[in-house]
Amino acid sequence: MAVTRDRNEADGKAGIVVNNSDPLKNIRVVLARTSHPGNIGAAARALKTMGLSELALVNPRQFPHAEADARSTGAIDVLARARICASLAEALEGCVLAVAASGRHRELRHETLTVREAAREVLAQAASHPVAIVFGNETAGLTSEEAANCQLWAHIPADPGYGSLNVAAAVQIFAYELRMGLSIAATPPAQEFAPATIGQVELLREHFERTMRATGFLDPANSKRLLRLLRRLLARNRFEVDEVNILRGFLKSVDELLRK
Amino acid sequence: MAVTRDRNEADGKAGIVVNNSDPLKNIRVVLARTSHPGNIGAAARALKTMGLSELALVNPRQFPHAEADARSTGAIDVLARARICASLAEALEGCVLAVAASGRHRELRHETLTVREAAREVLAQAASHPVAIVFGNETAGLTSEEAANCQLWAHIPADPGYGSLNVAAAVQIFAYELRMGLSIAATPPAQEFAPATIGQVELLREHFERTMRATGFLDPANSKRLLRLLRRLLARNRFEVDEVNILRGFLKSVDELLRK
Repeated sequence: MAVTRDRNEADGKAGIVVNNSDPLKNIRVVLARTSHPGNIGAAARALKTMGLSELALVNPRQFPHAEADARSTGAIDVLARARICASLAEALEGCVLAVAASGRHRELRHETLTVREAAREVLAQAASHPVAIVFGNETAGLTSEEAANCQLWAHIPADPGYGSLNVAAAVQIFAYELRMGLSIAATPPAQEFAPATIGQVELLREHFERTMRATGFLDPANSKRLLRLLRRLLARNRFEVDEVNILRGFLKSVDELLRK
Repeated sequence: MAVTRDRNEADGKAGIVVNNSDPLKNIRVVLARTSHPGNIGAAARALKTMGLSELALVNPRQFPHAEADARSTGAIDVLARARICASLAEALEGCVLAVAASGRHRELRHETLTVREAAREVLAQAASHPVAIVFGNETAGLTSEEAANCQLWAHIPADPGYGSLNVAAAVQIFAYELRMGLSIAATPPAQEFAPATIGQVELLREHFERTMRATGFLDPANSKRLLRLLRRLLARNRFEVDEVNILRGFLKSVDELLRK
């Protein structure tokens, strides 16, 4: 269910649509002054893979562009819907929260969260309101002025010696953390296979021991260590019913050989 | 402190160096049959931002290449050190665990973890042994055969309607989760035992198959499913050197029976 709100806010031309069933649809990614159109395309693809679709571009150097289309692959629809804005303020229109994707500007003493922490905050707000995440230019990042327009700052933990992520790679990680944040509360996938019971594994262990003695592999006088390791092997690994059956079928074929 | 081990294993040319102080340095990213050199460069950059540096390329279509250099930005050193391999087996040499980055091949019924869960497993092993993460080709992903060479499968949760991540974006997320996993669990538990290498487990699998045929357990006309299950059993469980030795010793005792 989608409802329209804030119709009279800001420019009044475009109503802000809030999606009440999918918070990811209320998250807008803003790319400020992007230099390379290929990065815009890659960012669009990154968003779509994680279920996001709102892209706003503040003064992109080249857009639209064939390189953006090429790098977007199947996310050309996200590019087609992207809003081109003349200012960051315009791109943030209608949002209740703007997060600066930046590890810099520490001189402004903003609170900086990791992207994982920020994702929780963003999702909580995006359940009912539009939220923006703002990424700066490839070489310079966000300006102090752009960052100051944001309420929360988030950084991606990186190697201290080389923390220079590509802007589309940074978008990918943010989008991924948003999707993960959303799915953590959801139910884990059902197991497709049938784990063996402890009793079934114990029967397998006894069968191994019996057949190992019969072939002469286990020396009756000196088998303690081997039996301990066998027990540990079977206890440590989580065998499935099919696997127990295969191993017992094989042991049975050895037993039959011994009877001949 | 770095120690050299397995010097005589496999090709014998390059000793496998284990870094005991930084698990990220023991994690090798393998790109199989990459089509676009730009993606190789972007993957190198993604690795370096997160503190990884080992890159192996299995039959890249074009490498070295100016586009790879351009997209690597400051990670040209990772590209320069990248190993070019003629086969996946060569790229996995010396590793105790290979993780397939793939959400497909569900027909093989492998256990599939999320990248976050897999990162914990990888970091635990990489504390003391080389570990690989394998990424497939841009259009086709990993082949069933490539995926079957891996012991653990990991997927990146994505939108069900459009889950097509760029390969370098996938590498970025894996590398990010590894770095995050490192900072969360600062000290992984010490391993008390010696995990078998992929090569050792493969020899065990071949031995099982040979002996199972010899006892008559495997029907030559109808063994496909059993062999698939056997491969999966051995891939899924992480056997130790001692365990591989016990099982091979037992198989040898069966072989000797058959010769009588």
